Amino acid sequence: MIKANDPDLHSWIEIAPDSNFPIQNLPFGIFTTPERDPRVGVAIGDYILDLCVLGQHDFFVLIDLDPNVFHRPYLNDFISLGKPVWRAVRNRISELLQNNNTEISGNSNLIRECLVKQSEAEMLLPVKVQNYTDFYSSMEHATNVGSMFRDLENALLPNWKHLPVGYHGRASSIVVSGTDIYRPKGQTKATDAEAPTFGPTQQLDFELEVAFITGKESVLGESITTYEADDYIFGLVLFNDWSARDIQTWEYVPLGPFLAKSFASSVSPWVVTLDALEPFRVKGPEQDPQPLPYLEVLGNRNFDIQLEVLLQPENGCEHSISRSNYKYLYWNINQQLAHQSSNGCNIQVGDLYASGTISGPDRSSYGSMLELTWRGTQPLLLPDNTTRQFINDHDTVIMRAYGEHNGIRIGFGEVKTKILPAL
Amino acid sequence: MIKANDPDLHSWIEIAPDSNFPIQNLPFGIFTTPERDPRVGVAIGDYILDLCVLGQHDFFVLIDLDPNVFHRPYLNDFISLGKPVWRAVRNRISELLQNNNTEISGNSNLIRECLVKQSEAEMLLPVKVQNYTDFYSSMEHATNVGSMFRDLENALLPNWKHLPVGYHGRASSIVVSGTDIYRPKGQTKATDAEAPTFGPTQQLDFELEVAFITGKESVLGESITTYEADDYIFGLVLFNDWSARDIQTWEYVPLGPFLAKSFASSVSPWVVTLDALEPFRVKGPEQDPQPLPYLEVLGNRNFDIQLEVLLQPENGCEHSISRSNYKYLYWNINQQLAHQSSNGCNIQVGDLYASGTISGPDRSSYGSMLELTWRGTQPLLLPDNTTRQFINDHDTVIMRAYGEHNGIRIGFGEVKTKILPAL
Repeated sequence: MIKANDPDLHSWIEIAPDSNFPIQNLPFGIFTTPERDPRVGVAIGDYILDLCVLGQHDFFVLIDLDPNVFHRPYLNDFISLGKPVWRAVRNRISELLQNNNTEISGNSNLIRECLVKQSEAEMLLPVKVQNYTDFYSSMEHATNVGSMFRDLENALLPNWKHLPVGYHGRASSIVVSGTDIYRPKGQTKATDAEAPTFGPTQQLDFELEVAFITGKESVLGESITTYEADDYIFGLVLFNDWSARDIQTWEYVPLGPFLAKSFASSVSPWVVTLDALEPFRVKGPEQDPQPLPYLEVLGNRNFDIQLEVLLQPENGCEHSISRSNYKYLYWNINQQLAHQSSNGCNIQVGDLYASGTISGPDRSSYGSMLELTWRGTQPLLLPDNTTRQFINDHDTVIMRAYGEHNGIRIGFGEVKTKILPAL
Repeated sequence: MIKANDPDLHSWIEIAPDSNFPIQNLPFGIFTTPERDPRVGVAIGDYILDLCVLGQHDFFVLIDLDPNVFHRPYLNDFISLGKPVWRAVRNRISELLQNNNTEISGNSNLIRECLVKQSEAEMLLPVKVQNYTDFYSSMEHATNVGSMFRDLENALLPNWKHLPVGYHGRASSIVVSGTDIYRPKGQTKATDAEAPTFGPTQQLDFELEVAFITGKESVLGESITTYEADDYIFGLVLFNDWSARDIQTWEYVPLGPFLAKSFASSVSPWVVTLDALEPFRVKGPEQDPQPLPYLEVLGNRNFDIQLEVLLQPENGCEHSISRSNYKYLYWNINQQLAHQSSNGCNIQVGDLYASGTISGPDRSSYGSMLELTWRGTQPLLLPDNTTRQFINDHDTVIMRAYGEHNGIRIGFGEVKTKILPAL
């Protein structure tokens, strides 16, 4: 059988050369239409392949699964079946969509039944998020923030190069791309003010992140090695970790970010599998000092994925404000998962582990407004001649990501969120 | 009808005067026996009343609920029915157990079917915990920790008296009383060491806390006022927020506690309803400065509940090491929930919100080994002539709690956990 990642594969479905979803990608998501209740689908070109329908037509009989797992409003039940099953399903779908295969393409009724235009579907949150951790794994971002709030010499705290710093986040407020967010309110205190006040944040920010989703559970008390981590990771999504900087400044000592983050985080709807990302593996930044043995990794553990942030004012055009790359991450996903479980913390199916803001080496690649405008001191000028220190009401923030290799683009689609005025 | 809290109520079930579970309590939990799969029960004296059986026998037909909600391994489905239903079920159970009621007591077969001895049942985690927040709401605890790690003059950080400081915790590793815990491993770094090392924590600690569980969800973007909070709170449990102090010291800047906490937290199995705790309402500590309007409360929002921590060495006896009280809490549960949702963060059914360590005014009432031994500098002497700076392998930590009013004791039972050596 031809491998699902082979660049020579072509589908009988016409796919634009710059599509995020060629036959080599096949990301999983949850969709619904007026006629179809929520279910599992796979993106292919401009379409969604309805796995619920394929299951009903016995296209997965050779795989050890109950096809009802595709008739769910979350991917959790499907991904809990484990990596051999995810892989078998992706390979089977690849086979069915290849241009020499007529099992679906030879049956025009079936084509109509199992293919849905993306433009006619609503995408839902792909997983019921069980636990959410946000890491802080970009050295450029941590250095920028540290030098802004402390000084350049002590920008990185002593622990930063020894472990992937992270914190627990709020799972309930993770929403899918397209969900509008109300500007959060909270306590803030100006440096020269005597007392705090309560009101809408004046420093609403995005954070450009990539998150991985786990599909296998571990037992409380046991740890996952960096080498085992790949078996636990189902796939990746784009992640916008919304932040209210002024709320954070006042609340975060000594226990870390809390309400400055928990009002919302936005994810892209399609989960790109680790298998689809194999061609984009690259070596990460050199780690010095050498990590402790439980954090050691072999081989290429980073991914060369281009990241972009765009800002669209109300009635305006999308304007690119940052281009970064997932490969800049200092701590990789294997190290993050090994660290998370190193104390025996149990991993669950549907956990989401976000990277932290991914900033690159220069200002054009910074992953937050905090860094792009250097804490508001150097506002961004937009094409409509307005400026931004942070995000305004009615602004839409869009993040997009893809890797390209051998002329094949494996994309994440986008995570797009509009900010509404505070309630 | 006689109110379920009336001190003059008596049951046809014999209940010892010092029982935690008189007819005025009626806490909810999940239990199983070799013959009964996991289901909802209510504690009464030394027994558990099997609500699944009562439902099958149509004892709840006048209440708007599907009795199958009692045939679940979690309380979530039942408590999602809302406060009027919790209250109606508790009132109905009170009625059935009163000594003038013969609906159950007059039928010896039914008695055998619906009553299970607690000693013959295994208690399970009462709720599937959706989101877990740990507050830091005891001024005595925050002052002790602050003066240990900074200095007495700056013990409380500037935000502490303006908002209930808290952080997101890990939901997956919350376990029920009776679950043994492996000593966690992690990175630590001695002050004079050049680099961190990885190994079992040398500073394993408990934290004496009380947590509330929510039974109503709110919508993302909306806030819950302090006045509405009672409608969201189903009940309370005892909570031991296990902590590895040396791991925390090294990891916690700048994003707060992470692996120092996420290896385990232990809860008591019986959820004591807010209704059962009404007789114990007292005024909390005076709040100065006056909280901002969204944190203002009316009436008595604290609870006079005696708390005790006991330490039992392997093959030794239980030894009381701390007596505190829930009433010492500076920030109350209404303020905690209002603050949590003040930024629009949505509350879910089955969220758990812990108080933070509850310490009293003097050393005998401190709620952690960190405080009891003042960071290990003043070890505790146990009756077996061993000493403790922190918790040893094979030690068992037990927390108990009850309120007493008009001769009626409303108890939480206990949360009891044994520490096993690191894996």
